[in-house]
Amino acid sequence: MEKEVIHMAHGAGGQLMYDLIREVFAIPLDNLYLRQMADSTVVQPDAQPHPPRLAISTDSFTVRPLFFPGGDIGSLAVHGTVNDVAMSGARPLWLTAGFILEEGLEIAVLERIVASMAEAARAAGVQVVAGDTKVVERGYGDSVYINTTGIGVVPASVEVGPRCIRPGDALLLNGPIGDHGIAVLSQREGFAFETTLCSDSAALNGLVEALLAAAPHTHCMRDATRGGVAAALNELALAAQCGIEIEEAAVPVRTAVAAACEMLGFDPLTVANEGKLIAFVPQENGEAEAALTAMQSHPLGRDAVHIGVVTEEHPRLVLARTAIGGRRVVDMPVGELLPRIC
Amino acid sequence: MEKEVIHMAHGAGGQLMYDLIREVFAIPLDNLYLRQMADSTVVQPDAQPHPPRLAISTDSFTVRPLFFPGGDIGSLAVHGTVNDVAMSGARPLWLTAGFILEEGLEIAVLERIVASMAEAARAAGVQVVAGDTKVVERGYGDSVYINTTGIGVVPASVEVGPRCIRPGDALLLNGPIGDHGIAVLSQREGFAFETTLCSDSAALNGLVEALLAAAPHTHCMRDATRGGVAAALNELALAAQCGIEIEEAAVPVRTAVAAACEMLGFDPLTVANEGKLIAFVPQENGEAEAALTAMQSHPLGRDAVHIGVVTEEHPRLVLARTAIGGRRVVDMPVGELLPRIC
Repeated sequence: MEKEVIHMAHGAGGQLMYDLIREVFAIPLDNLYLRQMADSTVVQPDAQPHPPRLAISTDSFTVRPLFFPGGDIGSLAVHGTVNDVAMSGARPLWLTAGFILEEGLEIAVLERIVASMAEAARAAGVQVVAGDTKVVERGYGDSVYINTTGIGVVPASVEVGPRCIRPGDALLLNGPIGDHGIAVLSQREGFAFETTLCSDSAALNGLVEALLAAAPHTHCMRDATRGGVAAALNELALAAQCGIEIEEAAVPVRTAVAAACEMLGFDPLTVANEGKLIAFVPQENGEAEAALTAMQSHPLGRDAVHIGVVTEEHPRLVLARTAIGGRRVVDMPVGELLPRIC
Repeated sequence: MEKEVIHMAHGAGGQLMYDLIREVFAIPLDNLYLRQMADSTVVQPDAQPHPPRLAISTDSFTVRPLFFPGGDIGSLAVHGTVNDVAMSGARPLWLTAGFILEEGLEIAVLERIVASMAEAARAAGVQVVAGDTKVVERGYGDSVYINTTGIGVVPASVEVGPRCIRPGDALLLNGPIGDHGIAVLSQREGFAFETTLCSDSAALNGLVEALLAAAPHTHCMRDATRGGVAAALNELALAAQCGIEIEEAAVPVRTAVAAACEMLGFDPLTVANEGKLIAFVPQENGEAEAALTAMQSHPLGRDAVHIGVVTEEHPRLVLARTAIGGRRVVDMPVGELLPRIC
C-alpha cells in the first residue's frame, strides 16, 4: 500500500485512521481541548452574561481549486466560519473540522491544508476543538471537502441581527468587492487568465471588535460571500422588511475585478467575497462616522466606505443609484454564477 | 431546467438556493432558532453551572446506500452526533447540519432524508439550529453527504471521560453488537444477502440519562461505532493506560450477525454499531449493578450485559477470555473492514 496517499482504510475507524489523525491533524492543530480525544470535547465559556449567549454557525467548503491566490480550502474553512460567527457580534472561540477525503489524495496536500488551517485559526484566535475524518472512494469526492462549525460567545452588550435594522441606518463596506470570486475563477480550467489578484479571504472578527467598540449600537453585520453584496443585501431587505439604497459609484471594485466582470458579463455586486462585510450602523450621535473611522484604522478596513442607506421606501427592494443618476434594481442573483467558489 | 433534481444553481447563493432552503430544509426542521436566518444562530443554554460546560462533537456521514434497514443517512446523522455528545455525559441540545449535494440528486430523495432527520431530532429532543448547503458537480460526490455538529450542556454533577477510568470498573454494554454494520452491508451491491436484520441506529441520550441517574459516579461512556467494540476499547485502554479484559461469551451477537461474520471472515467485535455504548462504572456501593438494572429498564438497554472489567494488568492491552477458557488479544482493527458504513 502506498504510504503517501489516502486509502479507504484511513477512514475505517482502525489503526490507520488513528495514525492519520495523530500525525496529520492532532499535531498541527494541537490544543488542550483537542487532546481530550473523547467522543465530544468539553469546553467552558468564561463570559458574561451567565448563562452566555452562544453564536453557532456551520459551513461546508468545496472550493475548486484547493489552492488559489491568497488562500486555500484550509484557511477559507477557518475564515468563512469565523466570519459567520463574528457577524452575530460574537467572539468566535471554537471550531470543529469535518474532512471528507477522496481516496488517492496525497497526504502531503492534506498536510499543507491542515497547516494552513492551523495558521488561520491561530491568527483568528480560535481553537479547533473537535474533528472527524471520512474517506470516500475515488470518483465520489474531489480531493478534500471540509465542514467547519464555529461557536462563539456574544458579549452581554451586543444586540445585532437582521431584526435590528432600522430606516436611516448607514451601510458601511470594508473594502473592494469581488476579489475572492475572480481570484478563484482565474485558476479554473477553461477560464485561466493572468491576474495578480488575490482572494480577500480573511478573518473579520478583529475588525468586528473594533467596529463594535466604536459603534456599540451597530444594528447588523453581514459578510457578502456566495451571491456577493447583491445576495447579502436582498436577504437583509427581506428579513428586515426595509428598502435598501446604495450608491453604485461608491462601491469599490479593483480594476482587475472590473475588467474580468466586463469580459465575463458579471455584475461585481454578485461576485463572492470572503473578507468583506456590510455593517448597518445608526447615523445618530455620529455612530456611523465613528464606525467608518474605526474600520479605516483596521488593516482589513483601510478602504472602508459608506455605500448606502436603509429606507422606509420600497420595502424588500434593493436599489442602486447609477453613476449617470438613474436607479436600478439590484436583484437577488438567480443561481449558478460561479459554482464551487467556497 | 428540471425542477425535481438538484442543479449546480441550487448551491450558488442566489434565489434558487434560498427557495431550496426554505422549502426543503426550513419547513421540516422549523424552530425559533433556525428562523433567525442570520449568518450564525444565537442560543442561550439555561443550565447549571454558570458558565456551563459545553460538549461539542462533529461527524460527517457518507453512508452508502442512503437508505438501509432501520434507518437512513438523515436519522444516522442525528443519532451519531447526539450519541457523541451524550458520551460526555452532556444533554445534547443543538445540532448544525451541513449538506454536500451532488448535482442530479432527486429533490424527493432529499426531502425524505430531511424528514427523517427532523423526526430523529424531535425524538432525541434536539433542535437543528443552523445549516448549510453546497452543491458539487455530478461525479464529485455521492448523492448526499451530511455533516452534523452537536452541542450539549454537561450537568454540574457529571464528570466522565477516559481520564476517569479506574482499575476495577465494570464494563456494561447495552445490547447485541454488529447490527448496523451487517445491516448496511446486506444492502451493498456485490454483498446483497437476505436478512431481516435492522441497524441499531438510535439516539442514546435517554439511556445515558437513566444510567447516570442510577450510577452518578459512572467513569466513562463510549459508543462503539466505526471499528466496533474492538476500536472503542483499544482507544480507551490507551487513553486510560489501563488493561481491559472482556468475557467473549458475554458479548451478545445476534444469530444473523454471527452468521454473516462467519461467512465474511469478520470479528463481530470490529463491526460498527450506531446505538451501542460501553459504560465504565465503579463496582463500589453496588453502582455497577444499579447501572445495569437501569439500562435493562430502558427500551434501548433491555439486553444490557456486564461484559468485562478494567484491570491494572497488561496496560493498554484489550484481552478477551474465550469460550474455551483461553485469552486472546483484541487488536485495534487495522483498516478497511466496511468502508462508508456511517
